[in-house]
Amino acid sequence: MSSQRRMMKLGAFLPAPGHHVAAWRHPDARPDGGLDFDFYRSLVRTAERGRFDMVFLSDGAGVRTKYRDADELSRQGRMVHFEPLTLLSALAVHTTHIGLTATASTSYNEPFTVARQFASLDHLSAGRSGWNVVTSATDAEARNFNLDHQLPHAARYRRAHEFMEVVTGLWDSWEDDAFLYDKEGGRFFDPAKLHVLGHKGEHFQVRGPLNVARPPQGHPVIVQAGSSPDGQDFAARWAEVVFTVQQTREGAQAYYRGLKKQVADHGRDPDQVKVLPGAFVVVGRTRAEAEDKYATLQDLVDPVVGLGMLSYQLGMVDISGYPLDGPLPELPATEGSTSKQQLLYEKARREGLTIRELYLSVAAGRGHRFLLGTPESIADELEDWFVNEAADGFNIMPDYHPGGLDAIVDLLVPELRRRGLTRTEYEGTTLRDHLGLPRPPFTTTTTAAL
Amino acid sequence: MSSQRRMMKLGAFLPAPGHHVAAWRHPDARPDGGLDFDFYRSLVRTAERGRFDMVFLSDGAGVRTKYRDADELSRQGRMVHFEPLTLLSALAVHTTHIGLTATASTSYNEPFTVARQFASLDHLSAGRSGWNVVTSATDAEARNFNLDHQLPHAARYRRAHEFMEVVTGLWDSWEDDAFLYDKEGGRFFDPAKLHVLGHKGEHFQVRGPLNVARPPQGHPVIVQAGSSPDGQDFAARWAEVVFTVQQTREGAQAYYRGLKKQVADHGRDPDQVKVLPGAFVVVGRTRAEAEDKYATLQDLVDPVVGLGMLSYQLGMVDISGYPLDGPLPELPATEGSTSKQQLLYEKARREGLTIRELYLSVAAGRGHRFLLGTPESIADELEDWFVNEAADGFNIMPDYHPGGLDAIVDLLVPELRRRGLTRTEYEGTTLRDHLGLPRPPFTTTTTAAL
Repeated sequence: MSSQRRMMKLGAFLPAPGHHVAAWRHPDARPDGGLDFDFYRSLVRTAERGRFDMVFLSDGAGVRTKYRDADELSRQGRMVHFEPLTLLSALAVHTTHIGLTATASTSYNEPFTVARQFASLDHLSAGRSGWNVVTSATDAEARNFNLDHQLPHAARYRRAHEFMEVVTGLWDSWEDDAFLYDKEGGRFFDPAKLHVLGHKGEHFQVRGPLNVARPPQGHPVIVQAGSSPDGQDFAARWAEVVFTVQQTREGAQAYYRGLKKQVADHGRDPDQVKVLPGAFVVVGRTRAEAEDKYATLQDLVDPVVGLGMLSYQLGMVDISGYPLDGPLPELPATEGSTSKQQLLYEKARREGLTIRELYLSVAAGRGHRFLLGTPESIADELEDWFVNEAADGFNIMPDYHPGGLDAIVDLLVPELRRRGLTRTEYEGTTLRDHLGLPRPPFTTTTTAAL
Repeated sequence: MSSQRRMMKLGAFLPAPGHHVAAWRHPDARPDGGLDFDFYRSLVRTAERGRFDMVFLSDGAGVRTKYRDADELSRQGRMVHFEPLTLLSALAVHTTHIGLTATASTSYNEPFTVARQFASLDHLSAGRSGWNVVTSATDAEARNFNLDHQLPHAARYRRAHEFMEVVTGLWDSWEDDAFLYDKEGGRFFDPAKLHVLGHKGEHFQVRGPLNVARPPQGHPVIVQAGSSPDGQDFAARWAEVVFTVQQTREGAQAYYRGLKKQVADHGRDPDQVKVLPGAFVVVGRTRAEAEDKYATLQDLVDPVVGLGMLSYQLGMVDISGYPLDGPLPELPATEGSTSKQQLLYEKARREGLTIRELYLSVAAGRGHRFLLGTPESIADELEDWFVNEAADGFNIMPDYHPGGLDAIVDLLVPELRRRGLTRTEYEGTTLRDHLGLPRPPFTTTTTAAL
């Protein structure tokens, strides 16, 4: 791919109501869209019309229950939705080109099952599947899987590394040309091209072979969001696409450089790991139109929800007793992320924000880079990061669906194309084709006889 | 449903190559069909055209490796195929009425994941999902999930019972009308209609709630194949459809009566459990045509495959050294199922069968009732069991695909309709509608606060 012009990679982040915390309350939103296949199909087809590399479904294995009570939870907008692998399997047969990336946890699944379901999705989609590998990060999920609390961070990553060894080994159970389908000779496959994994490790003992042929892509594309040192090391070892939360160009450049170096340290080609920071985008024909769109959503932020988000980001301190339109009080030390708490506190003081103004500022992007403006101004900002080694592309987060995604595809994408930054037609058919990633060669890790 | 005429329930058993052991070698067969979505779609649409109640995907969590070596395995025809939940999710959005039943194991999955994926499939299909509950029965599967040998039978069933309590409890996390989607009032759901399971048992600790709304059917239809005493007890407690292997009408009647009594003993309505024996069907316009079809397949049985099946049924004794066209030798006692071995041995002696003739007799139906003949003669045989309390319907096993299923839908189904035994149009839209099963009312098992 090195002889080709470098193209900006685009993922579409598609939680049903949209990325903004009040998305489901937008007059044009479809709050029941999380369980409406026709709605998802229309969203993904819109992203495919925009020639996005892939859609991306984030996921948690449970309802987050870091809320004081059911009343607070009932004001949130995304606690029920399709399970990602079943949804993407259905979308696979109603789309033709776009990549389909689903999240699955290494902490609460078995590697044989994950290897099998993603291999099956890769066959259903003729090579368009991606797996966003997560170790999961909430006790709410752990409590659905026989635990009171999640395993420690390092333990989750140790399990995740071995999980990947097993899954990638199982995907190589059969060589690409193992299946002969020779009716006359009575040979379904060539016995020399079957490989039995026979894995025995610290966490897993998995014999194989997988009961699915090698995926069309060899392996589904491995996606990961590594921010902690463990997470970045994991990404450097395994990931081919990395999502990341970055607010400033300098921060993004530092992350980009650091990760690519770690990739090289693992003996891998840094070009074969695509770094995609999240970008929460609100685009209008004019800046005023974009600001109006944004104000519509901000006006719909329920104070209970906004305070809950702020309290969470401040380390679960209770600020519900203070006036919304007064200043943030002095806060006690907590066990939460104190640096995040400190940053918010300093921001409130520096900008003279009230509690309401502060929660509105965090509610919008959920921590991601926030781009509001015209197609030209947003394209400028994306291009700036793209050409200055801060990003290989972006995971685009529309404010609400379908309107936000429609505006991105109808306004922003044409501007990116005009600049030659993104494709006008798909050049290939698989997600690896779109991303310019090589197809992994078959590697035998056989240790067992049949 | 009691005021309506009792209708014969029909399932279509759809392993990709077909039920006959040599199906994949048939000149018209599609040996690569197990990983070809268009092929599956055409099969399921054929079954939908025949107004079958459901299609049924059997499954094992691994390649069965009870073969001496890779050579013997390579002569079998169905070791790779789509994973059932991903395949049925894709089929759900390319069909409109037919029920979609997938197999999933209680031994090698977590209940939260199974509850979630089947709930998701039920939403994707607008109420057409069924779950064939298995405890799995081979060491080959156990070895893909951290075990050397599977758990003992009774232990698997104890886990399965608790698994069902968790899964059905999770499906009732949200009342049917819990979701308000009230944009103006800012209420996504009614907090009084959320129920947190809080299960703590011998095998599982699962808090909930499920992050999928209550399935359109309330619960997906529970399917099971209970033959052992533990299995029958499980079916009597949980199943709504029971698959069973029955060779004789008397045996089927005894099973039918016994199971329905056990169902009543559990305080359930016996009419709400449908008993569907398997029926391996080869149908032709004339008996001679059916016999020709059958001979085509029997001629394709590889002696290595036939001997392997016979050896397996005889308790893994090695008979490869004896002449195929000579008699079955005296056999040593084995640890296998001695009654099955004895039955086969007596059959061979009584009918004067050679080894080849014996393996051909077991190769065909894999133990299921074998019906060969004209539409009239096969309809007679099905009706005989149906009206004489031996069956509520049948799980129909075509010899090969697509030809065998085509013949069943084009020849046999019209004859069944002519007799008023099966529907000409779907009366309802869900699998429960088709089967005449009630929608389970919401039941709270809440023990935990949010």
